[in-house]
Amino acid sequence: MLDNISIVLVNPSHPGNIGAAARAMKTMGLSQLCLVSPDDFPSGTATALASGADDILRNARICATLDEALADCQFVVGTSARVRGVSLPLVDPRACAQSIIDEAVTQKVALIFGREDKGLTNEQLQRCHLQVHIPTNEDFSSLNLGAAVQVMSYELRMQQLINADALEMPKPRTHELANMDDMERYYDHLHQVLMEIGFLDHSSHEKIMAKLRRLYGRVRPDRVELSILRGVLSETQRCLASDNKK
Amino acid sequence: MLDNISIVLVNPSHPGNIGAAARAMKTMGLSQLCLVSPDDFPSGTATALASGADDILRNARICATLDEALADCQFVVGTSARVRGVSLPLVDPRACAQSIIDEAVTQKVALIFGREDKGLTNEQLQRCHLQVHIPTNEDFSSLNLGAAVQVMSYELRMQQLINADALEMPKPRTHELANMDDMERYYDHLHQVLMEIGFLDHSSHEKIMAKLRRLYGRVRPDRVELSILRGVLSETQRCLASDNKK
Repeated sequence: MLDNISIVLVNPSHPGNIGAAARAMKTMGLSQLCLVSPDDFPSGTATALASGADDILRNARICATLDEALADCQFVVGTSARVRGVSLPLVDPRACAQSIIDEAVTQKVALIFGREDKGLTNEQLQRCHLQVHIPTNEDFSSLNLGAAVQVMSYELRMQQLINADALEMPKPRTHELANMDDMERYYDHLHQVLMEIGFLDHSSHEKIMAKLRRLYGRVRPDRVELSILRGVLSETQRCLASDNKK
Repeated sequence: MLDNISIVLVNPSHPGNIGAAARAMKTMGLSQLCLVSPDDFPSGTATALASGADDILRNARICATLDEALADCQFVVGTSARVRGVSLPLVDPRACAQSIIDEAVTQKVALIFGREDKGLTNEQLQRCHLQVHIPTNEDFSSLNLGAAVQVMSYELRMQQLINADALEMPKPRTHELANMDDMERYYDHLHQVLMEIGFLDHSSHEKIMAKLRRLYGRVRPDRVELSILRGVLSETQRCLASDNKK
């Protein structure tokens, strides 16, 4: 499905940005790059910045005009740094990714990025069905072209993973949690040791034990962790006993 | 609230990545950068890549150790390129941003990124409360350090905007939509012109008009658009009439 999505860079001036865009795309599983009249390509700088995404650069389509690049597409989305008064539906990157992934099931989609210094012109935006704006800081909206491709590619991958129900992260390895009986035996043991070392006295012990119960209740230790805590208590008692013998 | 979030780069090797990270942060409204034992900083390359985010570089805290960088933080999140068997809760960037933004209301939060070539070590991850993994392509997970900072900074800004109910994009300027009476008058006019130019005949006109109704029904033109469409019809009739006079 991601193969139905082309990233189209219109007249990019810096080859490094082309390479960075290729790398950004590949990390997110996109493969179709199209360059409209690039100033400097192929280029060693682009290859260096692609950092292993050479296949994307090698397979990139080079077009003379935007119309040529869009010819076989049924759905076109334009990225815009400014929120301009074009009469086009305007969405954030997340909503945009939802639309693109939905369309890309059956249609060829182009996501187009303008030249670094000026973005897409109004004439270029008029070819789009949808406009996307990355909601940058109003006081510093200077998003690098490669970074913009990274953000949009990331959102496309997230949306694809969510649709495929494949976003779930592996759960950390955990042991069975200690049950309440284990915990009560621990609190008894802890109480006993804290009395032995003189940390608790008869006036304070209830209040302090309540605080310690709250702390360990929040932790919810597993059985392995609890056996470590129990071990510390036992070892403390062993030391005290051998000290007393001296 | 974003001021309570520090981006911590542990032992970064390339000054360009430090600059790109600063730029990425500033575009998303983050300002607190901390560098743990950078190989090469300050650096002209960092300043060039920051592309105007010099203030972030100038105000960056430089620490000798990770412990020094984290000393005043209450919540620490580690980024990890690989999904490792560390017994830490592991989340995707979106869920991570939710946690961080929630914590940052009252706590100081650090989001730490490892060295370019090896990421965070297990020892460094052990200082974290949460681990985040950007779900890259399994066959090409080589995300540039600046790009990783860009993705995480973007998610933090999105979450902040969502919480502040400030993500809504401006609606395109539209005129009042045509009502059904306007549309019926248009279809009458269209039918008349299509008969006059001989596009419709008595056998086909119902079927074709039904298709045209479906098309314009989908378009839902506004009043200005409909008056343009009506103007085209009127002008066609005017031309036909003047041709007939010749």
